[in-house]
Amino acid sequence: MALEAIKWNENKLYILDQLRLPLETEYITVNNVKEGWQVINKMQVRGAPAIAIVGCLSLATELSQASFKDKHELLETICEKLQYLVTARPTAVNMKKAAEELTSFTKNLYNDKVSVTEMVDSVISWCQKMLNYDVSTNKKIGDFGADSILKSAGGKNVKILTHCNTGSLATAGYGTALGVVRSIHARGCLDQAYCTETRPYNQGARLTAYELVYDKIPGTLICDSMVAALINSHKIDAIVVGADRLAVIAKHHNVPFYVCAPTSSIDLNLAVGKDIPIEERPHNEMTDIAGIKIASPGISCWNPAFDVTPAELITGGIVTELGIFKPA
Amino acid sequence: MALEAIKWNENKLYILDQLRLPLETEYITVNNVKEGWQVINKMQVRGAPAIAIVGCLSLATELSQASFKDKHELLETICEKLQYLVTARPTAVNMKKAAEELTSFTKNLYNDKVSVTEMVDSVISWCQKMLNYDVSTNKKIGDFGADSILKSAGGKNVKILTHCNTGSLATAGYGTALGVVRSIHARGCLDQAYCTETRPYNQGARLTAYELVYDKIPGTLICDSMVAALINSHKIDAIVVGADRLAVIAKHHNVPFYVCAPTSSIDLNLAVGKDIPIEERPHNEMTDIAGIKIASPGISCWNPAFDVTPAELITGGIVTELGIFKPA
Repeated sequence: MALEAIKWNENKLYILDQLRLPLETEYITVNNVKEGWQVINKMQVRGAPAIAIVGCLSLATELSQASFKDKHELLETICEKLQYLVTARPTAVNMKKAAEELTSFTKNLYNDKVSVTEMVDSVISWCQKMLNYDVSTNKKIGDFGADSILKSAGGKNVKILTHCNTGSLATAGYGTALGVVRSIHARGCLDQAYCTETRPYNQGARLTAYELVYDKIPGTLICDSMVAALINSHKIDAIVVGADRLAVIAKHHNVPFYVCAPTSSIDLNLAVGKDIPIEERPHNEMTDIAGIKIASPGISCWNPAFDVTPAELITGGIVTELGIFKPA
Repeated sequence: MALEAIKWNENKLYILDQLRLPLETEYITVNNVKEGWQVINKMQVRGAPAIAIVGCLSLATELSQASFKDKHELLETICEKLQYLVTARPTAVNMKKAAEELTSFTKNLYNDKVSVTEMVDSVISWCQKMLNYDVSTNKKIGDFGADSILKSAGGKNVKILTHCNTGSLATAGYGTALGVVRSIHARGCLDQAYCTETRPYNQGARLTAYELVYDKIPGTLICDSMVAALINSHKIDAIVVGADRLAVIAKHHNVPFYVCAPTSSIDLNLAVGKDIPIEERPHNEMTDIAGIKIASPGISCWNPAFDVTPAELITGGIVTELGIFKPA
């Protein structure tokens, strides 16, 4: 069973408190919309799809415990609660989009010939499907990626390198690139998963390492600078997701390079990667760790949060829930 | 004036306390051999050539203050003190080699027709030359490297990327690859020096960044994982010294890659790089910083301290005090 960052069981919602990771594994019960707003606002849950799912499920759990005198009261309650949830992290577009869709779905129910109880059940069911849909998308990505990598390996167990965190802690569950690692492991074909620590925010060291340990997947942590040495000395079979840097080294060493993402993450309106604005993050992410200075005072910093992988370096392909595509 | 980690002035020895860097710049006076032994043993001075030079100069400063009844007493004192200095860090071969050479030099003086005072002066002078010779070797490396890089740049100011620490803090002074940066800056041709933080030991963030700030050389810190993005977006003219990873990316982007080292560091007995034993270092260097856990407990680690740069990737050449050579 893969690590679940969001659990939904008999109309009860539990989330893994990401602020306590990797040192403590603690689930928090989210009993109502107010508590849903709080866990999103405090970043106890993070990751774009995860925020929207937790927001909607916090509404679902509240509805399951309440009673309404008529459909009008129910409709008004839902609309108002969704608007409130959007304010938890105003910059994240996902909760806003989910609120619009669910509001529209609820209005249709209001006009349909259903009872108050049927209307509540349908809304709860809609929220639960959001969670299930994201997980099943990720599982498909995992299986497509595993198929391709294992076919290339011709029957032997494989060593996979991944970068950053793309697992249960970044999605509704299972993960994209880390989902590929999970699928390979589930088939008994994983020799070792290697994860880079991913400076300066250490998502690999904190989150991916945590998921590997939690799921008992054989995993080893390396520094970002050790990738070339690792590929040279450890015969890596494939690299799933990652930054340009990784892709260049992968090509030099003839290791297939796969980008794993749901089709919803692909922006078809962009002509070339150079059009993507790259966020530059605060310098203290590089110079400090947990309040301790680790760099010389006075040095300038350049801290881009992402880089762009040239299409020709994605030698393995782009793994989506619909299959694997070569970049065109 | 480049940062001096070891200062020798009128028979007095001062060393920069590397344990307090980068947060405090404090020179310690080393008054005698016993204090020389202590600063080496406590690693207030580190780096292979620097250790031997500080050991010998601690003897020189002690001799300058003492008086000896005859040449025999002087010879015995020198031999005994040198043996004691070797024990400060028994694994470092440099102090042992220096002790043998200086012992042999002193024995010759003992047999020559020189006075006690002349003998003391000659020994002090020998120690001082050790320091000067290493610095002048580095300055030659710096100038050869600067010549080549500036010629390629055709008159415009250059942006240079370097890795780890190869400066005054790793040598007797000035530095090898960082010496090239210093030479370019001294000629007024440096636009910007970029240094990688160099995980897991952070020599770039702590030491190279410190030297750049101290010498007022325009410098910017990046994470190891940002090299490809930097080269793509900032038009880097050359990379001096570094690991395989850097070399692969340099080749992909057609940026000349230079390795800078004195001929004394080149081991002609090695046929191929694969014969070099690579030290694997403790895992807590990766998982902890200043006692704080930064990785998930339970994760395995792989922590090689070096990697091997394939000769064909050293596209700029190997810069030595004798000139620049292409690897053959």
